[in-house]
Amino acid sequence: MAITLYWGSGSPFSWRVQLALEHKRLPYESRLLHFDKQEHQSPAMLKMNPRGRVPVLKDGDYVVFESVAVLYYLDVKYPAMPIFGTSPEEAGVIMRVICEFQAYAEPALGRIVEAILADRVAADVELLTDAMHVVAREARTIEGRLSKEEWIVGASYSATDMVIFPWIQLLRRCLTRAAAADLGTRFLPMERNYPALARWIQRIEALPGYDRTYPPHWRES
Amino acid sequence: MAITLYWGSGSPFSWRVQLALEHKRLPYESRLLHFDKQEHQSPAMLKMNPRGRVPVLKDGDYVVFESVAVLYYLDVKYPAMPIFGTSPEEAGVIMRVICEFQAYAEPALGRIVEAILADRVAADVELLTDAMHVVAREARTIEGRLSKEEWIVGASYSATDMVIFPWIQLLRRCLTRAAAADLGTRFLPMERNYPALARWIQRIEALPGYDRTYPPHWRES
Repeated sequence: MAITLYWGSGSPFSWRVQLALEHKRLPYESRLLHFDKQEHQSPAMLKMNPRGRVPVLKDGDYVVFESVAVLYYLDVKYPAMPIFGTSPEEAGVIMRVICEFQAYAEPALGRIVEAILADRVAADVELLTDAMHVVAREARTIEGRLSKEEWIVGASYSATDMVIFPWIQLLRRCLTRAAAADLGTRFLPMERNYPALARWIQRIEALPGYDRTYPPHWRES
Repeated sequence: MAITLYWGSGSPFSWRVQLALEHKRLPYESRLLHFDKQEHQSPAMLKMNPRGRVPVLKDGDYVVFESVAVLYYLDVKYPAMPIFGTSPEEAGVIMRVICEFQAYAEPALGRIVEAILADRVAADVELLTDAMHVVAREARTIEGRLSKEEWIVGASYSATDMVIFPWIQLLRRCLTRAAAADLGTRFLPMERNYPALARWIQRIEALPGYDRTYPPHWRES
């Protein structure tokens, strides 16, 4: 079966799936959609995902979307290089930390990134400071895990790392903007504030195929 | 291994796990925690889940929480009566519809239920009307699925049904309150507005063990 991935540059949800495909060494056709041209909302894309969101993965005639569901499908379909663990107990923790990240960190991360990209930091500064507190608290928990193990759950690179990593990269990138300087003081530099997380980022950046997953428009600016 | 489930009456997250345990015919010790006595925040509970939330499932010495992770753990550990499908393709759709429900329906459902239970309907009426529109749109999509099949994904009762059902029951219960009458006009009675969903509710209510999962404090009022 031929895999095609429809994705957007800088979408943390898309990036997760790219990391999984590279980890599993699955060949795939890469279809980069341009948000500014509304390519993710084209009739062909809406036919696959009526919500018009990416990533969308096509495997032969089969279509799946929602990034965590794509990771899960890939792992059930192509079990080599497992990303949801090798025991029920490990599977449970991997999914649990993903659920916690989605429930407790992602809404705050979304608000911060959105405000910085839309140049609304000054207007929303109180809300964003609260959101940064939430992010910092969740990051400390992950920092604790990574100070004991190489990966967020246990001894292997897993779906949990793939789910969280793109958001951390996106946050770091946004916090380096001048308007976000105050917001970022307790987070950056990560080497000082979150040394285990910083080493984990370097570990992922050194993985084979990582360069192919890096958002192309980030190279330009 | 002995399974213990720590849960709260009326918690849709707890109810999901109870439905899964009954479906899989797994014997378990039921530990009902009383939110009004803060039992979910006791030192023993916080040791298992530092967030102090339910459900928490203990299986021997292993602890897992976050409802979807608990369902997933149970299915990997006890594969009989599968709830995440029997093929990679089905697994992908089951997880995809769960992710969609969590991302697009659950925040709105949470706002509505919280406002009704806190008697804040009049104060928040505009926000809640918007939230009801979101819920109605998502319910129409599920109605469409259920008008073609007996269960939300495919031919079998799955984790998707278990994730969504408790929220629908909680919403129905809240919308019958006098203060919520206006809010509920386009949703209730479900037999008229969402006939396939109404039949699906009856189907789940008729499942073996369902009575044991019904929130005890709902029987009293």
